Amino acid sequence: MEPACITLTPIGHVRTDVSDAEVSRRRRTIESEIVLRDEFAPALTGIEAYSHLIVLFWMDRVPGASTVLVTHPRGDPALPLTGVLAARGRTHPNPVGLAVVELLGRDGARLRVRRLDAWDGTPVLDIKPYDHYDVFTDLRLPDWLAGRPGNS
Amino acid sequence: MEPACITLTPIGHVRTDVSDAEVSRRRRTIESEIVLRDEFAPALTGIEAYSHLIVLFWMDRVPGASTVLVTHPRGDPALPLTGVLAARGRTHPNPVGLAVVELLGRDGARLRVRRLDAWDGTPVLDIKPYDHYDVFTDLRLPDWLAGRPGNS
Repeated sequence: MEPACITLTPIGHVRTDVSDAEVSRRRRTIESEIVLRDEFAPALTGIEAYSHLIVLFWMDRVPGASTVLVTHPRGDPALPLTGVLAARGRTHPNPVGLAVVELLGRDGARLRVRRLDAWDGTPVLDIKPYDHYDVFTDLRLPDWLAGRPGNS
Repeated sequence: MEPACITLTPIGHVRTDVSDAEVSRRRRTIESEIVLRDEFAPALTGIEAYSHLIVLFWMDRVPGASTVLVTHPRGDPALPLTGVLAARGRTHPNPVGLAVVELLGRDGARLRVRRLDAWDGTPVLDIKPYDHYDVFTDLRLPDWLAGRPGNS
């Protein structure tokens, strides 16, 4: 029923001085640039009015993503075996990354953001403003995740 | 710097009895099924523990998406011209749809969800659990959007 495959074109890439190994550990504070192709600068018109954005990116260096379906979250064997679609690890059938980021500023086709946990050079697929419609605060989570601190 | 194109394979599709024309209007209450390919059932292991999911889908019937960069939100000429990446309309360079949905139940490779504003037959690209890390409540929004009701 579904098409066999779908083709996307990156609209830009991530630029950060933080090393790949450090990105995840520093993900609550990391500052990066999203460098869009110049032709997309008009598509950002008005984006400065938002405090937060959703960024979709392509995790182009995740190896063999499509074959693994069940993992221990965070690679921790003490945590229950969990489907890859039921965890936020990098291993997904389509390794599309998603981050809600703080928008710090814009310069033409470049956005400066905080909390984008993507490696330097990562292709960016889409940007969407984050709004009240994305906010749900009364969440149920698995026990292994429920003790993790939130943002507030 | 970025690759010329990226290929994704749908993991399933959306199933709803609601007509395309009605989906957007009923988006706060609509119930749908996400029908994954059977091979991906193990990838959902443990997903029942979450109340909310993020669903990424491919808006395969959006015409000429890549050429339009600036629009009036909601097609309303009274609203300021806005870049397509600064609004949540369907017209994006890569028409990937995103919805935060309520998980109502699971049957094998099928998920029953509420608030998925995608048309019947829409290819599904990814599912991610929604957690506290995605929640930001102190938002700044453009004036034209700020009056819209939230979820709480």
